[in-house]
Amino acid sequence: MKETWSFLDALEPNFRPLVVIELAKGTKKETIEWFTKRIVDKKANGGAQLLIKPLVTENGDENIYLVGASHLRLLLGAETVGLVKECNDNSMRSFTYSSRKTFKDFADDNHNFLTMSECQYIIKHELENLRARDEKMIPGYPQAKLYPGKSIVRRLLTNGILVQIFPLHDREELKKLRHTWYGRVKIGYQPLDEIRSYFGETIALYFGFLEYFTFALIPMAVIGIPYYVFAWEDYDKYVMFATFNLLWSTVILEVWKRICAVMTYHWGTLLMKRQFEEPRPGFHGALGINPVTGREEPVYSSIKRQLRIYLVSVPFVCLCLYFSLYVMMIYFDLEHWALDYHEENKSTFSSLMLYVPSIIYAVVIEIMNRIYRYAAEFLTSWENHRLESSYQNHLILKVLVFNFLNCFASLFYIAFVLFDMKLLRQSLATLLITSQILNQFAESLLPYWLQKRHVKKMKKHMHSLKTDADLSLVEQVNLEKEMGTYFGTFDDYLELFLQFGYVSLFSCVYPLAAVFAVLNNVTEIYSDALKMCRVYKRPFAEPTANIGVWQLAFETMSVISVVTNCVLIGMSPQVNALFPDSKMDLVLTVALVEHLLLAIKFVMAFVIPDKPREIQIKLAKLEFESLEALKQQQMKVAAESLKE
Amino acid sequence: MKETWSFLDALEPNFRPLVVIELAKGTKKETIEWFTKRIVDKKANGGAQLLIKPLVTENGDENIYLVGASHLRLLLGAETVGLVKECNDNSMRSFTYSSRKTFKDFADDNHNFLTMSECQYIIKHELENLRARDEKMIPGYPQAKLYPGKSIVRRLLTNGILVQIFPLHDREELKKLRHTWYGRVKIGYQPLDEIRSYFGETIALYFGFLEYFTFALIPMAVIGIPYYVFAWEDYDKYVMFATFNLLWSTVILEVWKRICAVMTYHWGTLLMKRQFEEPRPGFHGALGINPVTGREEPVYSSIKRQLRIYLVSVPFVCLCLYFSLYVMMIYFDLEHWALDYHEENKSTFSSLMLYVPSIIYAVVIEIMNRIYRYAAEFLTSWENHRLESSYQNHLILKVLVFNFLNCFASLFYIAFVLFDMKLLRQSLATLLITSQILNQFAESLLPYWLQKRHVKKMKKHMHSLKTDADLSLVEQVNLEKEMGTYFGTFDDYLELFLQFGYVSLFSCVYPLAAVFAVLNNVTEIYSDALKMCRVYKRPFAEPTANIGVWQLAFETMSVISVVTNCVLIGMSPQVNALFPDSKMDLVLTVALVEHLLLAIKFVMAFVIPDKPREIQIKLAKLEFESLEALKQQQMKVAAESLKE
Repeated sequence: MKETWSFLDALEPNFRPLVVIELAKGTKKETIEWFTKRIVDKKANGGAQLLIKPLVTENGDENIYLVGASHLRLLLGAETVGLVKECNDNSMRSFTYSSRKTFKDFADDNHNFLTMSECQYIIKHELENLRARDEKMIPGYPQAKLYPGKSIVRRLLTNGILVQIFPLHDREELKKLRHTWYGRVKIGYQPLDEIRSYFGETIALYFGFLEYFTFALIPMAVIGIPYYVFAWEDYDKYVMFATFNLLWSTVILEVWKRICAVMTYHWGTLLMKRQFEEPRPGFHGALGINPVTGREEPVYSSIKRQLRIYLVSVPFVCLCLYFSLYVMMIYFDLEHWALDYHEENKSTFSSLMLYVPSIIYAVVIEIMNRIYRYAAEFLTSWENHRLESSYQNHLILKVLVFNFLNCFASLFYIAFVLFDMKLLRQSLATLLITSQILNQFAESLLPYWLQKRHVKKMKKHMHSLKTDADLSLVEQVNLEKEMGTYFGTFDDYLELFLQFGYVSLFSCVYPLAAVFAVLNNVTEIYSDALKMCRVYKRPFAEPTANIGVWQLAFETMSVISVVTNCVLIGMSPQVNALFPDSKMDLVLTVALVEHLLLAIKFVMAFVIPDKPREIQIKLAKLEFESLEALKQQQMKVAAESLKE
Repeated sequence: MKETWSFLDALEPNFRPLVVIELAKGTKKETIEWFTKRIVDKKANGGAQLLIKPLVTENGDENIYLVGASHLRLLLGAETVGLVKECNDNSMRSFTYSSRKTFKDFADDNHNFLTMSECQYIIKHELENLRARDEKMIPGYPQAKLYPGKSIVRRLLTNGILVQIFPLHDREELKKLRHTWYGRVKIGYQPLDEIRSYFGETIALYFGFLEYFTFALIPMAVIGIPYYVFAWEDYDKYVMFATFNLLWSTVILEVWKRICAVMTYHWGTLLMKRQFEEPRPGFHGALGINPVTGREEPVYSSIKRQLRIYLVSVPFVCLCLYFSLYVMMIYFDLEHWALDYHEENKSTFSSLMLYVPSIIYAVVIEIMNRIYRYAAEFLTSWENHRLESSYQNHLILKVLVFNFLNCFASLFYIAFVLFDMKLLRQSLATLLITSQILNQFAESLLPYWLQKRHVKKMKKHMHSLKTDADLSLVEQVNLEKEMGTYFGTFDDYLELFLQFGYVSLFSCVYPLAAVFAVLNNVTEIYSDALKMCRVYKRPFAEPTANIGVWQLAFETMSVISVVTNCVLIGMSPQVNALFPDSKMDLVLTVALVEHLLLAIKFVMAFVIPDKPREIQIKLAKLEFESLEALKQQQMKVAAESLKE
């Protein structure tokens, strides 16, 4: 049978398994046969022209398949997905097979020209773009309807026939990466280029941002320490600290754009052309004609979607916000009760009890955030967005609004309604520290411990005591397929975003927040690295050129923090003492300063170029070359047309 | 001699003169011969392959030349400049000669496929891109150095050998356009498509914006009238009016983007690819290697330019701003003096005298604006910007900052230092109306009158009493070459920008401003149309897809006006009366409302898409098609590579 699967023998010695396909147990023979045939079939026949091989396990199940591809196929795939690689002249260019000789490190026998994660990304792209032709349904499953152009893999996934597709770890590479990343205690940068070539750009960019953000917080932390140590309470020092913070946060966000441009230029993703976005897997609708592609595919009326958003999602979010405020009021009752209790008893126990409400509230906030996250995902998916990007934007907006209110409402209430700076400082500290501890535990340490236990059990089960490196392919696949799936950088960025809020919104009241943030982030780098390497399945690489909507989110937070800090400073007794006669003058001065700071922020954001000059020149050079090439071509046509 | 000029006979019966080249009197024979040879020479030999014909005037001077081009040459030129035209299937596509049959109204014998202004734009582009090859200098002028790649026309212009290049009017077309545009009294839209095909997109877009802006002001004007008529002074009505104005100004600016996208899509400029920007004519520097193109060309160190900007231009602008404030203080002295005079005399004359300082000040402001404009142009040109766009941005920034302060500083002073609402209303009215009258007079009516007198004199001189339509080509060229040159839409937009400031910054104090603005703009349309058709030389068409930096300028003005209006309302006695006990509460409420309005503005700007859905779909369709074409091509290569 195997010979008919592939014109290149799937068992050829250099078959390198890259991606694992797990089908549901008991999938019909005819379905498997049809699917594998489509995968190995020639491009000209509408196949993916990849290599596939069943993984024979002990109990003889044939529901796991390994996918690979010939070297030539991968190079052509690199052209299809639009990979950008470095040329011999150190410029970055879109890879094409015909110009392959001009690329750095290219040789026909160099199978390392494409990194393993690039190869896996290519295979994923090819599998997802394997489209139905004249099939009306998945053979063997009449309920799984197909229409011309529908992605077969996506249909198999939504119908549960395909359980999962994931890329294989490279045990050797991973060991090396782990060693340089977090294997030894050292002061230094993370190996971002190695992370990128192993996990792809999205994840490398997250770690790059985490590292950059941590470094950027250090000046704030350093300046904040003496305020704590010497208990400075002079208004001028507070004003200086807040002003520095506000301008600094603008500068770091602008500079990040530049650093990000330099990194992604060298990774090639800055130049990568946007691919045409296909409908997301969960999108459904009546078959109709897509006005853009002219193809028959499910269409869903935009008005219906708007109705769902405005009549269901928006009210639901508002209700959740109300509920969050309600919980906050309960917290204040508890706080009040604890204070009364302490006043009455004055014991060590009662003074400890003072911290209990804040800690409970911090835990409740974390729990509510997590529950709301599921609700938001469900709702956004029910809104039935056609594109993954639009789905993501709506999800992020929903989650950000709720998390912002949930985390910061109590602080705003304490600061601007209760005017209690001591309580604000205490709540801020409790919330920040509790949420950091909870996060580190829930995100990395707990899964790591569970995973470790699971591996032990599995190994015991397999009667093997081998170390990781010596595992056979079968054992490796069986271990990895049970690992958790990493659902993207969303939660990691969200955590940083909230941390940024804690640090900047009330920075002039609690300068020590930046110190805790720095300490947390140093361990965060290690625990996130552990999570990526040890806990989760390897994720597919996702090329990206920037941190997307998070840049906007951080910038918005820094604008809000200008307002809060100005108001806080205006409320401080020291500043109030400066205007003993007229509160009016005080408020007007604060408002003026606030507007000036905002204006400076916007001017700075406008004046600092998003890309360093060096990158601008390189981009201009590429653009110039392509325009020149076009002109040359036109000249040739013109010369021929004008010849008489 | 003529035969050697062109392989196509320049005297062929269908030679249609499109562009006029005026050389300096007494230009050397060898220079003329070399220049005309380069113009008619084949593309393959580095020529422009255009047609040229000397204009023989009565006194036998041969310093004026008419340039045209064959139909085929123009079509190929349309491809080079990247013109976008409508196809038979109503989609807009970049014109290419090979796909010419698919375009609407294309026929080999239809010489109207390209509009005359498009042909003139193509010829201008070709002339400007006529580049030196191995010439070291302009023949006959050793001081006019050339280097490979230098634009010959630009060198001839900077050396004064070439006096001017301008496109010819089409008397027939112009008559028709004048008739539909302003020839009859009618209520209706301007013929924007006709204006565009005669004057090009930049000018049509200005008239489109002027018309749109006038319509957009009508609701403000209508709502403003009862405030004046009934002398409403209730705070709630003011608040309503101001709130409406602020949100309305955001909406109109966002909607304009959408309207602009629809217009420029149908004109083809929305899809036009950006051409590579060559150095501007006045740019100079030592010969060096341009890092982008790799060509030898003048380079000028960016640090030197920065030094010039920050050490000379910025201080100079600050000095001018200071001077403008000084003049303002003199105005207030005058005002004070006039008031005293009136108090003493109480006559009709003295009450009229009250308006004199404002009128004088308005005239002085206009004069200062105009003088400063020359200084700004000189300085910006001395800063030696490489690109026209960068030159324009620096010039616009300089002029905007000064004009803003010069026009509005006195109003800010009256409103927020003197707290004199009556004087504010009076000054605003005087400034607005005086500047409108001055502008209409200085921009259109005066030049029209001068031009008319000049034409009469010319005709007398030529002993002819013919009407415009019967003029011979020689007479037409001689008339047109003496007409003034239209230096672009800068001044026109600036006028609208300042008007927008008068209307929106203090709208809640003087609701009638919008009425005057509407009245002014209705006549402005007519006087600007007159100016374009009668006073100035025909300008070259400039393709553009939007109003560029002016969009940003108008948006900034509308943000500033949120702040000023909130403060004005907060200062009004009616609102003050609402907070009899605590001015603090008043100020806090105002600040809160202001922040809310600003937040709403930003959210609205973010939520309203810049392009209508219909245009978005059309753009997505084009992008999809080009991606599909690329994929098809890759598939073909891949199929061949994989064939074994």
